[in-house]
Amino acid sequence: MRLRGVDVAVYDPSPSAQEILDAVMIDAVAAWDALGLATDQVGTLTIVDSIAEADSGAGLVQESVPERLDIKHSTLAAIDAAAPVDALIASSTSGYKPTDLATSMGHPERLVVAHPFNPVYLLPLVEIVGGDQTSLGSIDRAMETYRLLGMHPLHVRKEIDAFIADRLLEAVWREALWLVNDGIATTEEIDDAIRYGFGLRWAQMGTFETYRIAGGEGGMRHFMAQFGPALKWPWTKLMDTPELTDELIDTIADQSDAQAGDRSIRDLAQERDRNLVAILSALEGVGSGAGQTLANLRSLQSS
Amino acid sequence: MRLRGVDVAVYDPSPSAQEILDAVMIDAVAAWDALGLATDQVGTLTIVDSIAEADSGAGLVQESVPERLDIKHSTLAAIDAAAPVDALIASSTSGYKPTDLATSMGHPERLVVAHPFNPVYLLPLVEIVGGDQTSLGSIDRAMETYRLLGMHPLHVRKEIDAFIADRLLEAVWREALWLVNDGIATTEEIDDAIRYGFGLRWAQMGTFETYRIAGGEGGMRHFMAQFGPALKWPWTKLMDTPELTDELIDTIADQSDAQAGDRSIRDLAQERDRNLVAILSALEGVGSGAGQTLANLRSLQSS
Repeated sequence: MRLRGVDVAVYDPSPSAQEILDAVMIDAVAAWDALGLATDQVGTLTIVDSIAEADSGAGLVQESVPERLDIKHSTLAAIDAAAPVDALIASSTSGYKPTDLATSMGHPERLVVAHPFNPVYLLPLVEIVGGDQTSLGSIDRAMETYRLLGMHPLHVRKEIDAFIADRLLEAVWREALWLVNDGIATTEEIDDAIRYGFGLRWAQMGTFETYRIAGGEGGMRHFMAQFGPALKWPWTKLMDTPELTDELIDTIADQSDAQAGDRSIRDLAQERDRNLVAILSALEGVGSGAGQTLANLRSLQSS
Repeated sequence: MRLRGVDVAVYDPSPSAQEILDAVMIDAVAAWDALGLATDQVGTLTIVDSIAEADSGAGLVQESVPERLDIKHSTLAAIDAAAPVDALIASSTSGYKPTDLATSMGHPERLVVAHPFNPVYLLPLVEIVGGDQTSLGSIDRAMETYRLLGMHPLHVRKEIDAFIADRLLEAVWREALWLVNDGIATTEEIDDAIRYGFGLRWAQMGTFETYRIAGGEGGMRHFMAQFGPALKWPWTKLMDTPELTDELIDTIADQSDAQAGDRSIRDLAQERDRNLVAILSALEGVGSGAGQTLANLRSLQSS
């Protein structure tokens, strides 16, 4: 938001809110500078003392409290009561359906889910989801708002738990836990299988279009005929949920520690951001996908 | 292989083998040129008339026949009989265990799975898997061979069907089929959810290290405590395999056609390659992951 000159008020009851926010903003501004985006005319960022103060005069209120339905309900009720009647209210939830979130609100027609992805200051995607009572106008407004903020809003037309991206992520996460649980691979080996292989494909083309190419001139129908039967092969553990035993958690935490070596969380985040900046710039150069979103943001800034 | 000056003999009984090979090599050389790799001193590529002719004097034989166990068995038996006794034999299978592949071979100790990823001329990953009878020397030799060819060999220490990467890909594929089957999203929307979001992360950092950052200073243990319980949420269809009905196949094929618009398979492949070249160059610039493999290949070429 700040990149588009929007002033932001933040309410966060955590005593370390300012410190965390400062650290994130340093990384965000560094990444934007590296992308050559204008960071000299950004909006203000102010920490305030209450939901009411944060919402006063707001056009868009983004709720990002922990993923517990009771906390979501009380927070959304407070936002609904405090925000101007024409404000759009968006939840960052990665799992709850907007219909289930809206039950505590007097004006549920203005609630949407707007689910972004970390690091939110670099990844363009935001999933926009409406509930039973969300108005079509609110969906349109959310799509337009996030587009004008320089992101890539994707309208999830039917609400389901976890929406689209997190359903796919959850599938990989479960399978990855099985691989560690069964001693097939370590966290580092699994990460390498991703980033040296299909992860590179997915930065620029999704699973269906990639497989369309694999099908050759016969396209997707040929691919499905050729590889569809593999679905029936008994090679996956997906039918079951791995038990999150203390032992499995210890194994993963220890392997992850070994994988990180002496790189702190901050080091890793900065390494990630530097890589993402390079990838986004490269994709802008060839005019593809996320690179187009970046080019769009750049043109919004200069207009 | 050709990039490292290795001469390759190909046996492929298909009448269009030469045509297909020529088309792929044009794209491959274009991509290598764009990466600034030396393509003026590449090895020769010759189509020959039999397995025996292809294997004569070979140091490495790569089997890439269709994924049917009976065809794999007969082909590997023929290769085993024809190849020099000190040749390494590698299967490109994406699913079968090497132990199950080796049953027709007189010298199973020299068989490894070496599973590459499309486009093989750009993606560094190759999964190296040994079976019950594979010798440790053959594993070492495979790791060294593919490294010298400029790829990123990953030793899968325990053989399982589909190894590591395809287990993860299979998980995403199933979940994606559910999303289409249930009318939640189209093939294009699912692809966009990938390439504008987590796909960008995975081009440079895998799922575990990404989540480690999300866990903050508490690292992986904190992340598991916070998000582990979501595993129990009933939001996924993964417990079941979608029925590949004609209707579902039609839906996917039609959506994929609409998504591709007037772009042919060749157009899509060239778009993909141009994007991958840009991403790989960018990652080489920041010295990360697949970019390191590319830098390594460049230094192998100039040494």
